[in-house]
Amino acid sequence: MSVNVLFAADDRLWHNYHEPLRTALAEAGVDAHLATDIPAAQVDYIVYSPGSEVQDFTPFTRCKAVLNLWAGVENVAHNPTLTQPLARMVDEGLTQGMVEWVAGHCLRHHLGLDTHILHQDGTWRHDPPPLAADRPVTILGLGALGRACGAALAEFGFPVTGWARSAHEVPGITCLHGPEGLKTALARAHILVLLLPHTPETESLLNAARLALLPRGAVVLNPGRGALIDDDALLAALDAGQVGHATLDTFRTEPLPPEHPFWTHPQVTVTPHIASETRPASAARVIAENVRRGEAGEALLHLVDRDRGY
Amino acid sequence: MSVNVLFAADDRLWHNYHEPLRTALAEAGVDAHLATDIPAAQVDYIVYSPGSEVQDFTPFTRCKAVLNLWAGVENVAHNPTLTQPLARMVDEGLTQGMVEWVAGHCLRHHLGLDTHILHQDGTWRHDPPPLAADRPVTILGLGALGRACGAALAEFGFPVTGWARSAHEVPGITCLHGPEGLKTALARAHILVLLLPHTPETESLLNAARLALLPRGAVVLNPGRGALIDDDALLAALDAGQVGHATLDTFRTEPLPPEHPFWTHPQVTVTPHIASETRPASAARVIAENVRRGEAGEALLHLVDRDRGY
Repeated sequence: MSVNVLFAADDRLWHNYHEPLRTALAEAGVDAHLATDIPAAQVDYIVYSPGSEVQDFTPFTRCKAVLNLWAGVENVAHNPTLTQPLARMVDEGLTQGMVEWVAGHCLRHHLGLDTHILHQDGTWRHDPPPLAADRPVTILGLGALGRACGAALAEFGFPVTGWARSAHEVPGITCLHGPEGLKTALARAHILVLLLPHTPETESLLNAARLALLPRGAVVLNPGRGALIDDDALLAALDAGQVGHATLDTFRTEPLPPEHPFWTHPQVTVTPHIASETRPASAARVIAENVRRGEAGEALLHLVDRDRGY
Repeated sequence: MSVNVLFAADDRLWHNYHEPLRTALAEAGVDAHLATDIPAAQVDYIVYSPGSEVQDFTPFTRCKAVLNLWAGVENVAHNPTLTQPLARMVDEGLTQGMVEWVAGHCLRHHLGLDTHILHQDGTWRHDPPPLAADRPVTILGLGALGRACGAALAEFGFPVTGWARSAHEVPGITCLHGPEGLKTALARAHILVLLLPHTPETESLLNAARLALLPRGAVVLNPGRGALIDDDALLAALDAGQVGHATLDTFRTEPLPPEHPFWTHPQVTVTPHIASETRPASAARVIAENVRRGEAGEALLHLVDRDRGY
């Protein structure tokens, strides 16, 4: 008997995903019926995106798991009707894209590329930058993305400090945790990278008090979640010179409205949520593997802890 | 009896190097007299920079080796009065700086950072770049610098092709050689990195015919030697759109004169020969090790083949 997989996301995603998902399910050896219109009581798995029309999970009485298409689950994790297991996306392409964006912007700020890109004025400013070994980077968040970015930056020679709520051990990275660890991690960050999930605990984590702990002129990179930052506090820290530059890929409202002061602040670079983009082919393999595991009675990958919210 | 080491380079270099060199020589166990004014006939080793007043090596009758402070030796290798062994600098700091510059500019062009840095106009252009796996990079030159840059880029996921005059094998890099290999290497280069030495064979290697072999819109990075490029041919290829961008760190005349068209061309970024800067502490250790080897009768490191010129 075939497994009923409901694709509950918008039409554009269906367009991009239906073929990769069918291919991946077949390759995983799952006899699946994948569609956008399966009656709720007959659905075995839901492939989900927060933009979906499905907001009430109550009618999905035999559904074994909700498989989120994205890494961020804050728009579904706390849905009170969701009683099924919820899995996040951990996609190789997504991780690789994040590593490239984070390393690219770290090297950009480390090497002072903007000076050369913006000021081709005939002046030979022979002022070599320090080596990466003299440019400490702190990453807040040691999930799959934070660990992968930390490993890549450490490979380059940057001294990397990682911080998370609970204790971690990651080769090549100095790991700190808890409230005191956060203060230490911020105090040493020439470049600060935000890769925490958005939870009630991380809402506006980077507020005025914590921005004040950074070394003067530090660079802030936020490819994580817009709500990790108190926008007004960041703008004030930029105006005061406490933060030297902020390069932001995620925002509280996306697309970032044209009138938002981030667009025009000379020390802010806005990138349009491109750091980490799930790639259909590799994401489909993760979904298919979880359906296969569910059918085989094996533990699902990347399950969300609903109490923590990620 | 102490070893007489003549420092034959300009005053600024003496200022930066005399302490690191004394420290490194002592740590290498060499009882050395290091000075800028040792009579030629009493000199055992010359620490050399091309800007030195020493142009005639004939009076240095007992000199055992000339130890160049830089990687490039084209200004001394063909000096007909130089009969002593000549060693190049291969400095960890220099290699690391080069890897950072090359990776930084590869990622900059790969990720399209200039668009975001130059156009903060309130327009949300959600157009994620491809992954590094879809951005082939070709490195011309597989010496210490080319190999190190290739390894770092391959680690990032870029498909890397390396080319040199003779056959090489480097893990993770597709190595090509010879005239036919050069054509293949150029034809696949979305990003082309020049790290060849300057020799009669490599003079203007990147000429109009070879630029025409690149994929349309390719990016050229030249942290190697200015004379590798036919400047007029490059400008013509940029104007024609055959080359999408050139980021250049080395030039035929340095500092690059303010009136040179590279400064004002919108698809050219000039950086002021900062990609690879010898760091005194690590460079002094290389010099000291070669003096130690010379005194112990061991083979010198990084000897220049005078026929090849590098």
